[in-house]
Amino acid sequence: MKKTAIALAILSVGAASVQAGTITTDGPDIVVKTKGGLEAKTTDGTASFKIGGRIQLDYNSYDGVINAKPGEDGSDIFFRRARLELEGHYQDWGYLMAYNLTDSGSIDQLHTTYRGFGPLAELTFGQQKEDFGLEDTGSSKWITAVERSMPSNAFDTGNNVGAKLHGFTEMISYSLGAYKQDIDGNNDLNSATTARFVVRPLHGPGALVHLGVGYTDRDGAFTQLGSRLGVRGGESGNGAGRVRARYTGTPTPVADGLKAWNGELAASFGSVHAMAEYFDGEISGAASATDIEANGYYVQLGWIVTGESRAYKNEIGAFDKVKPAGAAGAYEVFVRYDELDVSDNDNVAPVQVIGETGNTATLGVNWYANELVKVALNYVHAETDEKIGGEDEGDALVARLQYAF
Amino acid sequence: MKKTAIALAILSVGAASVQAGTITTDGPDIVVKTKGGLEAKTTDGTASFKIGGRIQLDYNSYDGVINAKPGEDGSDIFFRRARLELEGHYQDWGYLMAYNLTDSGSIDQLHTTYRGFGPLAELTFGQQKEDFGLEDTGSSKWITAVERSMPSNAFDTGNNVGAKLHGFTEMISYSLGAYKQDIDGNNDLNSATTARFVVRPLHGPGALVHLGVGYTDRDGAFTQLGSRLGVRGGESGNGAGRVRARYTGTPTPVADGLKAWNGELAASFGSVHAMAEYFDGEISGAASATDIEANGYYVQLGWIVTGESRAYKNEIGAFDKVKPAGAAGAYEVFVRYDELDVSDNDNVAPVQVIGETGNTATLGVNWYANELVKVALNYVHAETDEKIGGEDEGDALVARLQYAF
Amino acid sequence: MKKTAIALAILSVGAASVQAGTITTDGPDIVVKTKGGLEAKTTDGTASFKIGGRIQLDYNSYDGVINAKPGEDGSDIFFRRARLELEGHYQDWGYLMAYNLTDSGSIDQLHTTYRGFGPLAELTFGQQKEDFGLEDTGSSKWITAVERSMPSNAFDTGNNVGAKLHGFTEMISYSLGAYKQDIDGNNDLNSATTARFVVRPLHGPGALVHLGVGYTDRDGAFTQLGSRLGVRGGESGNGAGRVRARYTGTPTPVADGLKAWNGELAASFGSVHAMAEYFDGEISGAASATDIEANGYYVQLGWIVTGESRAYKNEIGAFDKVKPAGAAGAYEVFVRYDELDVSDNDNVAPVQVIGETGNTATLGVNWYANELVKVALNYVHAETDEKIGGEDEGDALVARLQYAF
Repeated sequence: MKKTAIALAILSVGAASVQAGTITTDGPDIVVKTKGGLEAKTTDGTASFKIGGRIQLDYNSYDGVINAKPGEDGSDIFFRRARLELEGHYQDWGYLMAYNLTDSGSIDQLHTTYRGFGPLAELTFGQQKEDFGLEDTGSSKWITAVERSMPSNAFDTGNNVGAKLHGFTEMISYSLGAYKQDIDGNNDLNSATTARFVVRPLHGPGALVHLGVGYTDRDGAFTQLGSRLGVRGGESGNGAGRVRARYTGTPTPVADGLKAWNGELAASFGSVHAMAEYFDGEISGAASATDIEANGYYVQLGWIVTGESRAYKNEIGAFDKVKPAGAAGAYEVFVRYDELDVSDNDNVAPVQVIGETGNTATLGVNWYANELVKVALNYVHAETDEKIGGEDEGDALVARLQYAF
Repeated sequence: MKKTAIALAILSVGAASVQAGTITTDGPDIVVKTKGGLEAKTTDGTASFKIGGRIQLDYNSYDGVINAKPGEDGSDIFFRRARLELEGHYQDWGYLMAYNLTDSGSIDQLHTTYRGFGPLAELTFGQQKEDFGLEDTGSSKWITAVERSMPSNAFDTGNNVGAKLHGFTEMISYSLGAYKQDIDGNNDLNSATTARFVVRPLHGPGALVHLGVGYTDRDGAFTQLGSRLGVRGGESGNGAGRVRARYTGTPTPVADGLKAWNGELAASFGSVHAMAEYFDGEISGAASATDIEANGYYVQLGWIVTGESRAYKNEIGAFDKVKPAGAAGAYEVFVRYDELDVSDNDNVAPVQVIGETGNTATLGVNWYANELVKVALNYVHAETDEKIGGEDEGDALVARLQYAF
Repeated sequence: MKKTAIALAILSVGAASVQAGTITTDGPDIVVKTKGGLEAKTTDGTASFKIGGRIQLDYNSYDGVINAKPGEDGSDIFFRRARLELEGHYQDWGYLMAYNLTDSGSIDQLHTTYRGFGPLAELTFGQQKEDFGLEDTGSSKWITAVERSMPSNAFDTGNNVGAKLHGFTEMISYSLGAYKQDIDGNNDLNSATTARFVVRPLHGPGALVHLGVGYTDRDGAFTQLGSRLGVRGGESGNGAGRVRARYTGTPTPVADGLKAWNGELAASFGSVHAMAEYFDGEISGAASATDIEANGYYVQLGWIVTGESRAYKNEIGAFDKVKPAGAAGAYEVFVRYDELDVSDNDNVAPVQVIGETGNTATLGVNWYANELVKVALNYVHAETDEKIGGEDEGDALVARLQYAF
């Protein structure tokens, strides 16, 4: 009996080296994982590596005021985003390398983070999100609608090169950063300062209330405030018209600064989640050019029919993925109403106002086939207070197949 | 005795953890492999990841009618293709991300495949091969000659964004897809439909007979049908002249559609393989512009001197790699004759016919140094029925060093 | 007792498969490592794979003659270099794929190496360093100053496509290669030949003396010899002015060849290292245009305060990384003086001489936070013999955060 047990123990060890080669490491123990991409991390927490990416294949079909060619239907199938993403860390220093494969390639995010002070004070250097607005701070992989709302677009700071101090606890998240806006005619830097503060008065299992406020103050050349009407408008992004106020004339006057603030309100109870934001900002005209103002808001309500909850990340203070519980995936329905108002500007040269106020109502359904795959279908109805090219209404169908590994 | 055995068993287990750290996973068991690139897949088949790439370094030396500068010799050393390639799957959904590093970067293939219906009906969404023609459907890594034949080039659909239904058994392969061709002046989509069917009446160990037929019908703007004469002509691809029929004048008339079909015949017996294809198509002139027609064919015979067989992939219905059996690698010799005929068009404005009919004879040798490395040397002799820039003959030497990991 | 031992042996094997899944390979045994990036190599040495990258985030602030806008201050924060890097080998063939993520993407290095003849005669095919100069041959990750010296810049051959024979022993390193310079108007190749020979009369633990000589002879179109004054000058690289001699007029005459040679001297004793190089070259004016000459040198002395030695790679005959010994990282201070002289040229059309002779004195400190992270701060004082835009002096502060995984 004993002998057999021993023999089995020896055999089972021996057998493994007959059937398959061994994999070891010459450093600390490592845990490896694959789920389409690949992850490796040492069990002592000193180092990690992860490679993955995202593919967003969109179909747009739209007409009326949404199409930049009034009186015509537009449609396109294209990659909205396609990225290769590497991240990792060694000791106190982490990095993220996210590269856009579309439009012949560009850096999306590329940064190094010092985590030696703990999660309450991390320092990130390089091209990164500025963290302005709830919808803009969340990942484009996990926004509820296919496109972010009109005011989120109008006041999107984009990803810029700079330094950001940020941190979080279970109850608060904050970030404060200085960034490069552009370079002036003498090779000197124009900079931007952006801050955001989020508090979660309620944050337990299946229950979240999120309140946030943000502010950005930017030097540099600006020419307009505006947004597309809820639809990307094809691969080039030029298919869709815009509600906007802009400078015109020869030469075009440009503003020398932009200031904006926003307020955020969000909640999640079980499988229901809600979001609302308000944005207000103005660009200050250079020389004698008048200022340009804009403001807007959106409200959104979503329900995950199959019962899952939308994840939320304290680290960035924003909603994250829906992870399906069952083999058939998760289904989510949502409705959103948003508005962007540029009507407070006088439509007098050098300022031109187009559309006055635009709003869109979006109705959508998302199917999370598994942790990597999301299929989205949105119906968008858009209206403008003033006709653009003879149209003040439009409809669109927008679909997305997303693979995020 | 017993004691020693036990001690050894314990020691051998213990020794491993002294000499080297362990690697584990927190999910299903994983098999990892490296051969220049890296692969990981779970043993239960739920997930996989693979990273690799291809590097094709070419040298071209050419003269006569092949050079776009008549009377001169041309030569260049350059990357014909250089790609980073990721692929993987999770549950029923797979992806491929292939990015061109040349020309400042572009997407080669980028798609998501649903495999939940089994191999007889897979659905691929995104930028992909349309599967038109045997040579064009096969990988550029494993075509026999350095460049594909003239008619394969003339009727190459390229990789486009769309949706394709495809499947295979041991005996048949098929694909049927709809793709984006371009966007018209009103932001609306022009599309293409392409179908291919392949049957293998004989397919056993060391024996294959392949019959195929394809058809493509395309809306959109087309301006010419033609091809280079068997040689890329340097990095820019502009070094080599072309046999072609095209629209000229101001403004250039453009066709509003292209239709083409082809027939495929291939066989492989032991170390000998043969391929032949015929292509016929026309572009339909818009407004009053006359149509443009072209047709062509090639025949090719190859022999792997060291006795290996060329692999064949049922999944795409096309030939694949040569895997050398011995340490000295595998040697292959081949001969190909091809022809592209644009002489059926009247050389009357707005149509301009250049070269009438072109043909090339290619003689080549391939050395597969190991599974990753291929060294190719081709001699090309080209002729045209009508002189181009005073020349109607030309010769070229084309060499390639390929590393596909 | 015995029973327990056996039971433990069996349990310990069994326990592993309960707590964590196993990772195996179906080929030779593999060793995996992560330190931000990922490495895998078979223990039998037949295959390997490595993925990593580098991120260099720079801040430049500069004035006077350094700024291309005289009388103004310039400043910028930008990625000096950002690369994704893959390398690996299978049997006798290796590859390197290094892709620049900046400027919408380009190939940095992309090559295949045959190592079947051993380290004394390796053959590298593809885009690679030509190996001209000690500072230029060393990696941009491990140069001591933030920017290479003026003469190293002026005579930098860049990375080109070609074939190089190279090898090394403990005592010598050499390389000899032929490369593509450009393509002439008839599609024909202009080539360059470059050779380098390094001898190490002393090379023991903590002691190194390095002597080197290099030569390059290049056909092709050249228009100037010159260099920036020790500072990149922002993201575009156009912020900084240049000391240079160039052809002017309409049309601009161009040289049809460039010849240059250099001498290298380096030493390292314990934590002190020193480098010096001299460069001399000329471009030969095409047709009746006069030649353009330039020469320059630099001397540099560095000391690693925390006691580490700067690594040195026999394979390329150049200095390499500083690997910190302690948890607080390593600190290095250095001083460099360099000069570029273009004053030997007559400032007569079609030749224009700008700045006559430029020199910079650089004082810097590097903190190697860990093996991956380097923080550098350089102060640069530049002078020119002749005023440029009214300035003949300038100062700069240059900082870098580097993450090389």
